[in-house]
Amino acid sequence: MSIAVIHGGTRAEGNTEHLTMRAMKDLNVENIYLKDARIKPIEDMRHAPEGFQDAGDDYHAIISKVLQHDVLVFSTPIYWYSMSGTMKNFIDRWSQSMRDPKIGNFKEQMSRKKAYVIAVGGDQPSIKGLPMIQQFVHIFGFMGTSFEGYIIGEANQPGEIEQDQEAVFAADRLNEKLKNETV
Amino acid sequence: MSIAVIHGGTRAEGNTEHLTMRAMKDLNVENIYLKDARIKPIEDMRHAPEGFQDAGDDYHAIISKVLQHDVLVFSTPIYWYSMSGTMKNFIDRWSQSMRDPKIGNFKEQMSRKKAYVIAVGGDQPSIKGLPMIQQFVHIFGFMGTSFEGYIIGEANQPGEIEQDQEAVFAADRLNEKLKNETV
Amino acid sequence: MSIAVIHGGTRAEGNTEHLTMRAMKDLNVENIYLKDARIKPIEDMRHAPEGFQDAGDDYHAIISKVLQHDVLVFSTPIYWYSMSGTMKNFIDRWSQSMRDPKIGNFKEQMSRKKAYVIAVGGDQPSIKGLPMIQQFVHIFGFMGTSFEGYIIGEANQPGEIEQDQEAVFAADRLNEKLKNETV
Amino acid sequence: MSIAVIHGGTRAEGNTEHLTMRAMKDLNVENIYLKDARIKPIEDMRHAPEGFQDAGDDYHAIISKVLQHDVLVFSTPIYWYSMSGTMKNFIDRWSQSMRDPKIGNFKEQMSRKKAYVIAVGGDQPSIKGLPMIQQFVHIFGFMGTSFEGYIIGEANQPGEIEQDQEAVFAADRLNEKLKNETV
Repeated sequence: MSIAVIHGGTRAEGNTEHLTMRAMKDLNVENIYLKDARIKPIEDMRHAPEGFQDAGDDYHAIISKVLQHDVLVFSTPIYWYSMSGTMKNFIDRWSQSMRDPKIGNFKEQMSRKKAYVIAVGGDQPSIKGLPMIQQFVHIFGFMGTSFEGYIIGEANQPGEIEQDQEAVFAADRLNEKLKNETV
Repeated sequence: MSIAVIHGGTRAEGNTEHLTMRAMKDLNVENIYLKDARIKPIEDMRHAPEGFQDAGDDYHAIISKVLQHDVLVFSTPIYWYSMSGTMKNFIDRWSQSMRDPKIGNFKEQMSRKKAYVIAVGGDQPSIKGLPMIQQFVHIFGFMGTSFEGYIIGEANQPGEIEQDQEAVFAADRLNEKLKNETV
Repeated sequence: MSIAVIHGGTRAEGNTEHLTMRAMKDLNVENIYLKDARIKPIEDMRHAPEGFQDAGDDYHAIISKVLQHDVLVFSTPIYWYSMSGTMKNFIDRWSQSMRDPKIGNFKEQMSRKKAYVIAVGGDQPSIKGLPMIQQFVHIFGFMGTSFEGYIIGEANQPGEIEQDQEAVFAADRLNEKLKNETV
Repeated sequence: MSIAVIHGGTRAEGNTEHLTMRAMKDLNVENIYLKDARIKPIEDMRHAPEGFQDAGDDYHAIISKVLQHDVLVFSTPIYWYSMSGTMKNFIDRWSQSMRDPKIGNFKEQMSRKKAYVIAVGGDQPSIKGLPMIQQFVHIFGFMGTSFEGYIIGEANQPGEIEQDQEAVFAADRLNEKLKNETV
């Protein structure tokens, strides 16, 4: 079992990344930093005769990497009560992968994966972040991906996430669980 | 009273735009098409000593236009159960405007505006689009913007939105209401 | 195709009942008024050796009536951002029906039904009533019941619902739809 | 600072009660078991000339007890993705207290209290229980009550809640926090 972490944050060593790395400690994971990639917004070409065209960016390389793993960890700061625009643009492009012969059966591949969400926000995230969790429920539900759990942490200042004892506990527990599963 | 429509769609003349234009019929609105602008993702610099830097893209010009109007209509297709990544990137950048001396008191300005959301989706949007509406509630709630109402339409094929009689009725009603208010 | 309307309101001729009756105009429906029945709260006996006991109230008669119909309309005022306690107590008792040999395969029977929700509230129901709709999604999802649609109206004073033009339009449309289906 | 625990469960020593009691360990709390009280459903008399009448049940005694405390813990099993009907009937009656001269200014009294929710469910409660949390947000928001936090546990069989390590950790943390505050 192998793990890909898809980082949606835009700040190096932010609280979200910190919490995520704690949950991934000593695990062999492939870290994918969306902020370092060039991913264009989806252009909806579902109904155009020519269909989706190659966007000439890094999306294809990244989704190909993602598909090589069994467990996907979506790590995103909560910006404006939702995932980052960077993460959203990445997910929007899945509509293209659904119709991309180079990918093959995208939905079927995604349906065999397990997903986790780790998110940190500053404004009552355990309440105001719930709609975002529900969106991930719908996203994974559409794909058939098994939504195995999520951790919502609260932090504002850099490093502050270590003070959210429940989030830290949950990250350590997830770490243990994944260690047992990947042995 | 003047109106700005912020279009988050990526397809020319899509169902969302169509429904929105129906609601704006014969009204004097400024249409802002995010897909035609270059808006970089936010880079979270709240905690960096140098703060946010000018991103050298179209964001500043667009938010300046938006701020000139009293009524803001957020028009977005529902991609993956949420607003488009294009729209999300635009909203993420508000964090920068909150700290931008060129803008002045962004939150205070936004708190005097009225907002509507018009969104069209293909997969049970009146149910699976609800978390997105809740996110707009939180976004406008933070800003103090008055959330005046939303319309969720259902459509997949181009032009299909005209068959969603309830969405069309709601768009016509909104049109009447705005006509009365802008006289 | 036959229709049962399950009324969860506690006030005679309230706004919720009014809107519901408009949607049921000229249709042959069985009206079930929960407020006139004696339905005890569930007592969770799933894990007791003796199991659920007959509660000696009207629940069994009512659920038996409900099960005779193909379309179920759940009509409830929105009290405190959710269905009425009267309606909730009724639904809670389904846990008993799931294990009641007198009922037979409750879940399987429910899975062949279509459901609608009609709800009226006074405090921004189209926003603050959304969690209730999501709960019905989960309830019907568990049962396999097809959730065909919902109408949320806004009203406070008696009779005020007639001024919610969108809710009235939606009720009339539902009426047409059900007329076509029941012919 | 004194604490009232409002128990909405219907089974003696259920998982919800167990988790709640763990969070209340060694604290001086007043336990209120709704299942042992007779609380009639609200009858909406807001618009009747005579107004709400005395219901002749235990509600008044119970709400009077509740109002004597500073911290309110709402402890409810998750039945059908929401609070128990027993708990809902209790909360529905608040509409009466809002207009009850015997109570005085109900809303103002409630606005000075802190609230916690502890809930245990069996079917993905950390996801499917989220709408219930959002409803408590709206309920407390209306009252001005400070919503201090919630714990959602997962359990089906009696006693199983002890295996939900994150819920147990959160309960122990809440216990510590309340101990510090009540000293």
